[in-house]
Amino acid sequence: MAKRVAVILSGCGVYDGTEVHEASAVLVHLSRAGAKVQMFAPNADQMHVVNHCEGKPTGEKRNILQESARIARGEVTDLAKMDMSAFDAAIIPGGFGVAKNLSDFAVKNKDCTVQPQVENLIKTFHKAKKPLGMCCISPVLAAKILPGCEVTVGQDKDGDKWPYAQTAGVVKEMGCKHVNKDVDQAHVDVKNKLVTTCAFMANAPIHQVFDGIGVLVKEVLELAATAF
Amino acid sequence: MAKRVAVILSGCGVYDGTEVHEASAVLVHLSRAGAKVQMFAPNADQMHVVNHCEGKPTGEKRNILQESARIARGEVTDLAKMDMSAFDAAIIPGGFGVAKNLSDFAVKNKDCTVQPQVENLIKTFHKAKKPLGMCCISPVLAAKILPGCEVTVGQDKDGDKWPYAQTAGVVKEMGCKHVNKDVDQAHVDVKNKLVTTCAFMANAPIHQVFDGIGVLVKEVLELAATAF
Repeated sequence: MAKRVAVILSGCGVYDGTEVHEASAVLVHLSRAGAKVQMFAPNADQMHVVNHCEGKPTGEKRNILQESARIARGEVTDLAKMDMSAFDAAIIPGGFGVAKNLSDFAVKNKDCTVQPQVENLIKTFHKAKKPLGMCCISPVLAAKILPGCEVTVGQDKDGDKWPYAQTAGVVKEMGCKHVNKDVDQAHVDVKNKLVTTCAFMANAPIHQVFDGIGVLVKEVLELAATAF
Repeated sequence: MAKRVAVILSGCGVYDGTEVHEASAVLVHLSRAGAKVQMFAPNADQMHVVNHCEGKPTGEKRNILQESARIARGEVTDLAKMDMSAFDAAIIPGGFGVAKNLSDFAVKNKDCTVQPQVENLIKTFHKAKKPLGMCCISPVLAAKILPGCEVTVGQDKDGDKWPYAQTAGVVKEMGCKHVNKDVDQAHVDVKNKLVTTCAFMANAPIHQVFDGIGVLVKEVLELAATAF
């Protein structure tokens, strides 16, 4: 039977929402695998709106759910209305929206709090032994909610390819194990049924990001198939 | 030598800008093929802004270039500043932005006019025998500027899978030949070096749209390799 996968969005655009290419890659790979997908996002204001040409905040207000609908082609549901029992797995693509709208990680780092609906989702899926997939910066949500879990956000050594390498250190400070992986790989924490890949945490060609997310989707669906 | 490909965006979101998954697919396939990509968009207000949850216009104003930067991760240039001699090919992904911001096709159909910078681009590339790739609704731009050209926007018979089938008729009214193709195919008008694929003009799974765009990118790069 087709696996039912929830994809959690956080807006539309790398600097204040979901990274659109990560979301798109998740959807393409899930579609090819025959999964049944439904998208969700919080119905709330974004932390802020960033002019993506300049990388600077504007004075505008935008709603997370409405902006996520740009990725979802209108087919996105208020996360507050999600029936978690109706899904076999959940995947959270990256983008700064994860650190601004699904948590306040962008401001508070290891002392962040996770948006309550997202916290509830992670705890509920984890307790039910349903797999969670997270890419880019999203693994910090797992690091916060599932202390001791294993994640990758890429590499822990700075360099042209790893501009966000310090995030690996923050993950360790949060009490988790960071596993170095390249952009076309994913790490599977079998015990926690948690799959992570670095995606655009690497400064890498977009097709490599696409392929790494393909590995993540494959691993999530395999864990969903072997649940319980 | 790597082919240099310009990708022309029209905002961010299917109902008032570029369809994000079509743009993403174009970029993934170009990246895998080793092409050198630069993105462009007009620096002007969108025709309007659509709430993508409700499918209805809001009172907001947004700038095409700034919204396109959400897809381009900030790396997008004002189309007015494009040096066309620096490129071997150009690709225009679809979305209603093509029919609202790159032309007024959404309002005037066959009597539309094309945004002057886009018209100039199509004429310049065509004259220089450099290939053009267009997907979804974008082929209407070619139909307007290159009378007699051959394009596909999918199928000309209505049905669940082809909700926009009437567009094929409009293309014919514009004096062009419409060629029926499925979502995972592209049509090559060899004479005009024009490659088209229907993408989300089909109500099809996203991985099939991704694959159809893969065929388009492959054909565009092959035409670029055999130019002159």
